Amino acid sequence: MRELDLVICLPDCFFGCTDMTEYTVSFDITPKPVQVPSGTLISEAARMAGAEIMQPCGGQGRCGRCAVLVESGAVRRRSTLRLSPTDVEQGYALACQTVVEGDLRIAVPPQEKIERRLTSDRTVAEVSVPAGYSYDQSQTLRRVNLTLLPPSMEDQSDDWSRLQKGLRQQAGLTSVKISLQMLRKIGAILRADDWWVTAIVDVQDSPDGNRLEEWLVDLLPGHIPETDPLWGAAIDIGTTTVTVWLVDLISGKVAAQASEYNGQIARGEDVISRIIYASKNGGSEEMRELVLGTIQELIKTACKRVKGMGQVQPEDILKATIAGNSTMLHLMLGIPAASIRLAPFVTAVNHMPILNGRTLGLNIHPEGIVDCLPGVASYVGSDITAGVLSSGLDNTSQITLFMDVGTNGEIVLGSREWLVTCACSAGPAFEGAGVVSGMRATNGAIEEVWINGETFETTYRVIGGIKPRGICGSGLISLLAEMFMTGVVDKAGNLNTNLETRRVREGDHGLEYVVAWGEEAENEREIVITHVDIDNLLRAKAAIYAGYSVLADSVGVPMELIEQMLIGGSFGKYINIEKGIQIGLLPDLPWERFQFLGNTSVKGAYYALLDRDLRSQVREIASRMTYIELSADNTFYDAFMSALFLPHTDLLRFPSVAAAVGR
Amino acid sequence: MRELDLVICLPDCFFGCTDMTEYTVSFDITPKPVQVPSGTLISEAARMAGAEIMQPCGGQGRCGRCAVLVESGAVRRRSTLRLSPTDVEQGYALACQTVVEGDLRIAVPPQEKIERRLTSDRTVAEVSVPAGYSYDQSQTLRRVNLTLLPPSMEDQSDDWSRLQKGLRQQAGLTSVKISLQMLRKIGAILRADDWWVTAIVDVQDSPDGNRLEEWLVDLLPGHIPETDPLWGAAIDIGTTTVTVWLVDLISGKVAAQASEYNGQIARGEDVISRIIYASKNGGSEEMRELVLGTIQELIKTACKRVKGMGQVQPEDILKATIAGNSTMLHLMLGIPAASIRLAPFVTAVNHMPILNGRTLGLNIHPEGIVDCLPGVASYVGSDITAGVLSSGLDNTSQITLFMDVGTNGEIVLGSREWLVTCACSAGPAFEGAGVVSGMRATNGAIEEVWINGETFETTYRVIGGIKPRGICGSGLISLLAEMFMTGVVDKAGNLNTNLETRRVREGDHGLEYVVAWGEEAENEREIVITHVDIDNLLRAKAAIYAGYSVLADSVGVPMELIEQMLIGGSFGKYINIEKGIQIGLLPDLPWERFQFLGNTSVKGAYYALLDRDLRSQVREIASRMTYIELSADNTFYDAFMSALFLPHTDLLRFPSVAAAVGR
Repeated sequence: MRELDLVICLPDCFFGCTDMTEYTVSFDITPKPVQVPSGTLISEAARMAGAEIMQPCGGQGRCGRCAVLVESGAVRRRSTLRLSPTDVEQGYALACQTVVEGDLRIAVPPQEKIERRLTSDRTVAEVSVPAGYSYDQSQTLRRVNLTLLPPSMEDQSDDWSRLQKGLRQQAGLTSVKISLQMLRKIGAILRADDWWVTAIVDVQDSPDGNRLEEWLVDLLPGHIPETDPLWGAAIDIGTTTVTVWLVDLISGKVAAQASEYNGQIARGEDVISRIIYASKNGGSEEMRELVLGTIQELIKTACKRVKGMGQVQPEDILKATIAGNSTMLHLMLGIPAASIRLAPFVTAVNHMPILNGRTLGLNIHPEGIVDCLPGVASYVGSDITAGVLSSGLDNTSQITLFMDVGTNGEIVLGSREWLVTCACSAGPAFEGAGVVSGMRATNGAIEEVWINGETFETTYRVIGGIKPRGICGSGLISLLAEMFMTGVVDKAGNLNTNLETRRVREGDHGLEYVVAWGEEAENEREIVITHVDIDNLLRAKAAIYAGYSVLADSVGVPMELIEQMLIGGSFGKYINIEKGIQIGLLPDLPWERFQFLGNTSVKGAYYALLDRDLRSQVREIASRMTYIELSADNTFYDAFMSALFLPHTDLLRFPSVAAAVGR
Repeated sequence: MRELDLVICLPDCFFGCTDMTEYTVSFDITPKPVQVPSGTLISEAARMAGAEIMQPCGGQGRCGRCAVLVESGAVRRRSTLRLSPTDVEQGYALACQTVVEGDLRIAVPPQEKIERRLTSDRTVAEVSVPAGYSYDQSQTLRRVNLTLLPPSMEDQSDDWSRLQKGLRQQAGLTSVKISLQMLRKIGAILRADDWWVTAIVDVQDSPDGNRLEEWLVDLLPGHIPETDPLWGAAIDIGTTTVTVWLVDLISGKVAAQASEYNGQIARGEDVISRIIYASKNGGSEEMRELVLGTIQELIKTACKRVKGMGQVQPEDILKATIAGNSTMLHLMLGIPAASIRLAPFVTAVNHMPILNGRTLGLNIHPEGIVDCLPGVASYVGSDITAGVLSSGLDNTSQITLFMDVGTNGEIVLGSREWLVTCACSAGPAFEGAGVVSGMRATNGAIEEVWINGETFETTYRVIGGIKPRGICGSGLISLLAEMFMTGVVDKAGNLNTNLETRRVREGDHGLEYVVAWGEEAENEREIVITHVDIDNLLRAKAAIYAGYSVLADSVGVPMELIEQMLIGGSFGKYINIEKGIQIGLLPDLPWERFQFLGNTSVKGAYYALLDRDLRSQVREIASRMTYIELSADNTFYDAFMSALFLPHTDLLRFPSVAAAVGR
């Protein structure tokens, strides 16, 4: 392959514009080769062949995870970032950065498997119905049984007027609207059970609060018993994980839950990569379909999991309330998200209009209400406003810090009196990306590490109790804390090469620490943490710490006065507080002030799905929150730089850690 | 073909269920034969082969116009109504009533050509802008130029909020709504000319009149000069003819007009046939596509006809106001129309919701407002409410009779004080259907006839000045009046066989009168009027006369007190008043009380398109009109029976005719 490297720096069009030759590309993991024109990216050829190649960075050539082995044939590498010279010599190439210049045989290394079932999908959270929930008073959907007089020669009024009259006289609904598609159906439904029908009407306060918007969502023949379930769905669209709760709106109970990785993951690990991917030709539509596909599968799964309440079909769902970060909602709706990524970082829309299943292309009832909750800014979306709602932050008298560390870190500080918020691009390091041996919290991930302070040997716990394949976020926090507390790294994160251990050594990527030797690990692949990985983790934790310290400073609240520390997000559930404090990710507060809330976003969506007042409260939260743009804040950079140490430059901020390390 | 008649009465399934043999059917007018299973209707095979066969009765086997010649092969005739024994012997079969039972060769007789251009399409009506029209005050569409502040780190509000703020502060529009599809587009448009944009917002009064519905219809980069045109379309969907007027909403001027036959004609001549056809499998969708196809072609044509106002594209049309009878609107919207046809004759909807181009599937701007005007009842649609508006009937102090004779006859009687209305199923006799030599008012149609009172020889005038092919509605009225006045028929419509003329004779269908001999006519095909035709015409005119006499009686207004007689519809334009009175179709009033208004429906749609107050007036007209159901009125039958004479049983009602015939 050597001679090919000579042409690396030629511009794309040098060959591309004139050479329209077609080449045959075969992948070892798909049955049929594909024909592509000269100059096609290998990632594009793979897509055409149906060979799944992950592109966690969205095809920017940054993450190196789409590396494939070119067994034979001519290619041209635009970039080899993340590949070592040995890799290139062996024939490895980044699928997203390498173009076809001849017939190719390509071997695709085993991709990181996305387990079919998330670990968090296994355990169903116990959710209690909000105190005092009453369908009659709180729900926007109204189900009413109507008994209409059939038309006669004396009363020839049209079907729709007749139904409107029934809605007015028998249910007090005076201005119900109807879609063309429903108009096509009502005639047959009205006559199916001799003008006895059940109407389901959604009654929304209009944004100005002065009037009602009434929509006919469904019409069914006959009368339906009052206690029969009426189905809704609360949905959280995370960058990594999508969660659906199926809810009976009559009783308010969560009848089933389901979670799954966001189908967009293979097209970008973080929101920035996704936006870049979506900005490419056809990318927006692909992203939209991927996340809708995930939601639709989850809805089907949740429907199947309902027990003892009859068969439930996706089309029975008449209302879906959706929370998610601004990028996820834009991508789901097919709204261009490019402006989110570029200064001055604005969304196309924070307050989405009410939509329906048909418009969104979701598999619920075509007229089913789709209510996307409002966000605050590009990086503080409705996952956070929903989280504030469900955590009760906006109603507490205690000064509370709420943080949701997922792929991004969003922070809210406040109480019932005031709310400030910011977002810090922690990056996906804590989700295992950007770290050589990083992986998600699935089977085979090291989730907790202990280092012997004298021998520097490791002990670890692996999810699923099998041989380790890598390290997940909580494992990385634990590892970094142990390395710091045992002196394997110093406060600046530098590996100590003077220790009596083989584990600190010079590797392919520079200095590294071996967490698990080949013989312990799956596929005999050593699990290491490199100095680059440590830098990435330091930057991630520093961004988060700097975020809440700037936020606290902006309102003049000293960190120690924070009375509650609420941690949302599925990631939060697994953090060891002590170790989080030791690396300076969490503030040094008494442990009893910390609370892990799990998925606060889906819970907020669930509250808003049930209760019109809680739904209004989300709107109010969104408008009450003062957003602080860290990239425009001149104190942020200093705070970030000071936090790039373990636990921090200023040890006075971490008295418990200072005491433990005896400094 | 004789032996085949033996199996005529076997039920469909006798062969159909078991015999799945495929046969080859070839038509002389299409290049390729088709393969169809045994039992397929010839009309269906023709559709598959692309051979156009007219089915004016909608495939009910009533009109006989789909007759084809089976040159070879086995068929089974379900019905031979309208075919003479000779026809059957020669091999003729009704395509809609005959099934394939072997390989067939079929000859399709020349179909009545629908001329590409209607006669009425040639002459453009001069339309004046309603007095005092002011775009600023009357139009629901508002076009506003906005200058927005670009986003910055100090103002990161989302695109849609920024646009809403501009609409609020710079145009006073406080509650504008937006579709998902527009949300996808605004980001790029706002940035295309550095946050200078032109927004087009539709501001509708809600039906309860208390509030406004504001919709963002379009957003364009840059500022648009105030006098640039803003395009709307007024559309009339007649059973026979569809008319589109393209209107500049700024000046209010009609910039172009276009008319064409309704593409549904081949699937049924009258509304009943169309409803029947639409009720068949797939018929509804076919009907919808046919009429939308007609409208879309007309819109394209109208756009091309605009002169001196720049290039206009269909997508530039931002609002369409549509009038039409209830069946036409139901079929266009894909709403089942079956209940219109069956007692108690109710529509699915009289007041359609506001739709848009996308929902309707029309080629105007996808967000363009589609406003279907409200009708009153199954057989008094918005063509009539629009007609009342444009004729000024609802605002006059004079007692006025308004009639719109098209395929159906609708009648309104009243003044500014009161309005009553009814519909009579005149049938399409006056449009040339149900009459052996009947045809539409296109080239080759006899439109006026004179009979010599002594020789009983005819003189006639033919549209286009060519050899006659048949007789159109006005020709039939003229012919019938002449036959009556010269004694060729008596007052009961019986042909006088005692006259010294060869023209009254026994024909294939019984007694008939020859209007044109073979040598005078196109294709040497004699043009005759049979006693069955005369009966059909008598029934049609009797239905209309009985309609307005019952209406007048119902409000106690003697016919002679009617101060104005307004005739709408394109048919009305060609009626000779004197002859209309002579046959008893029109009431015997002084000629100066008659006024022909042409297409009052499209004119009403035009008024409603321009002016929000006139649009409200249509709603008011629809609610003010008292509908009288003739089929439930016990005086109608008597009135109808009395009117089955020339001009009427009671000659006192037609003093001018009595004087002329000297009785």
